[in-house]
Amino acid sequence: MKHIEQHLVCGGQQTVFSHYSETLACEMKCAVFVPAHADNVRLPVIYWLSGLTCTEQNFITKSGAQRYAAEHGVIIVAPDTSPRGDQVADDPAYDLGQGAGFYVNATQAPWSEHYRMYDYIVSELPNLIEQNFPASAQRSIMGHSMGGHGALVIALKNPGRYKAVSAFAPIVAPSQVAWGEKAFGAYLGSDREMWKNYDATALLQASTERLPILIDQGGGDDFLKTQLKPEILAVEAERCGYPLELRIQSGYDHSYYFISTFIGDHIARHAAAFTR
Amino acid sequence: MKHIEQHLVCGGQQTVFSHYSETLACEMKCAVFVPAHADNVRLPVIYWLSGLTCTEQNFITKSGAQRYAAEHGVIIVAPDTSPRGDQVADDPAYDLGQGAGFYVNATQAPWSEHYRMYDYIVSELPNLIEQNFPASAQRSIMGHSMGGHGALVIALKNPGRYKAVSAFAPIVAPSQVAWGEKAFGAYLGSDREMWKNYDATALLQASTERLPILIDQGGGDDFLKTQLKPEILAVEAERCGYPLELRIQSGYDHSYYFISTFIGDHIARHAAAFTR
Repeated sequence: MKHIEQHLVCGGQQTVFSHYSETLACEMKCAVFVPAHADNVRLPVIYWLSGLTCTEQNFITKSGAQRYAAEHGVIIVAPDTSPRGDQVADDPAYDLGQGAGFYVNATQAPWSEHYRMYDYIVSELPNLIEQNFPASAQRSIMGHSMGGHGALVIALKNPGRYKAVSAFAPIVAPSQVAWGEKAFGAYLGSDREMWKNYDATALLQASTERLPILIDQGGGDDFLKTQLKPEILAVEAERCGYPLELRIQSGYDHSYYFISTFIGDHIARHAAAFTR
Repeated sequence: MKHIEQHLVCGGQQTVFSHYSETLACEMKCAVFVPAHADNVRLPVIYWLSGLTCTEQNFITKSGAQRYAAEHGVIIVAPDTSPRGDQVADDPAYDLGQGAGFYVNATQAPWSEHYRMYDYIVSELPNLIEQNFPASAQRSIMGHSMGGHGALVIALKNPGRYKAVSAFAPIVAPSQVAWGEKAFGAYLGSDREMWKNYDATALLQASTERLPILIDQGGGDDFLKTQLKPEILAVEAERCGYPLELRIQSGYDHSYYFISTFIGDHIARHAAAFTR
């Protein structure tokens, strides 16, 4: 691990480090905020997954989350959104390739060589964090847009691994919208049965844990009716009795202005789910 | 005025507009946050002046100020840091020309044609804001680095015009440090007597108003010992009995992580200075 940025903020340390990921077979950057804490204390960790085009920078510079993480004594880990580098397959479009990993394990060439963000977020990264930071084994997960999809899918597929899950404007049914169809078609191939492994709506019924889901969705979000469609998840949750709280926040758009408005509430909810 | 961005954040409206500035003789962008408020109420206005290389974007995306402005019911205006455009004189260095207006009225060619940021901030911009937003005539001013210098100088030169002034890591004595010597030499010429009109330390003694100054300075700021030197202002304040509160915040650097940590306190102090 190489520390490449370190800033004191709200009494805690905002770090950005890089490391070689065995899972992704490339060098990766990741941001970690560690609040001020007593010696020998280990803190619970919130994993934040960012959306299309983002890096590890967007959340740490724009969300204002550090204040709330400091207040609640939780670590926040914000990884990059895909494998990176000249040797990593890419696409000129913003919604495929680098910056658009979609938190899946790709099975199709040329993507399958590096695009294994699911395994990276679920396994490799938490091991690294728990070995190198004062992190306990208590975890939760949240994200925005593509990262909201990632948070929901990862929580649903790993019962017992996360204490809380929430999302801002998530892609709740990637198999049914253009962003997901394009990415899943490329990364997972044309067999739509395979897509169900990474589709929150498709995974909901089979969930044994029934970890409650909180979703905030801006009512003025330009992608609401085309790519996000939270009503698809809401209908499925209603049908199978899954605990989902979907809040449509009137007038808010898809930006970090929206995230910064409600991030404090999400962090408070996650913190309340951790055992002290 | 042309609205070019509008986002709901913390219940208020974050707007970015552009307008033709008669003072600067070019098109300018400016950001304004207006919190939720009752009809027919006019709110006090905090002017935020940004530092070198910044535009109207840095403060509104990174400081987290909107939450506190909403809490205290104050408008925040964040202008760009210099005149802009292909027809405006510039320099390849980051610390001269576009992005580096230093809040002075330039007297030297080629800068004097457009570089009149002092007049823009003191006169034209407040008139525009008070005519087009629900702004009262109560104003305060704060800023960062080059913008901290601007805030101090503008408050000191305009007794009665601002209810409060504060700064983050300001250039307190531009005539005595490299950033200021370069910029003042270019914009104001080689006669250092002229520089005193825009040097907070030089202006302190003559101030009749004695508006209290709050300064936060990161103890881990890379520019502390070369460009900022707050002790120069502290010594002069002590000498002439000027009310200055200088807080060295141990470990904080020059970034928006530092600003975001203490902006809530600055906004609360300014809000307390406004008459309700």
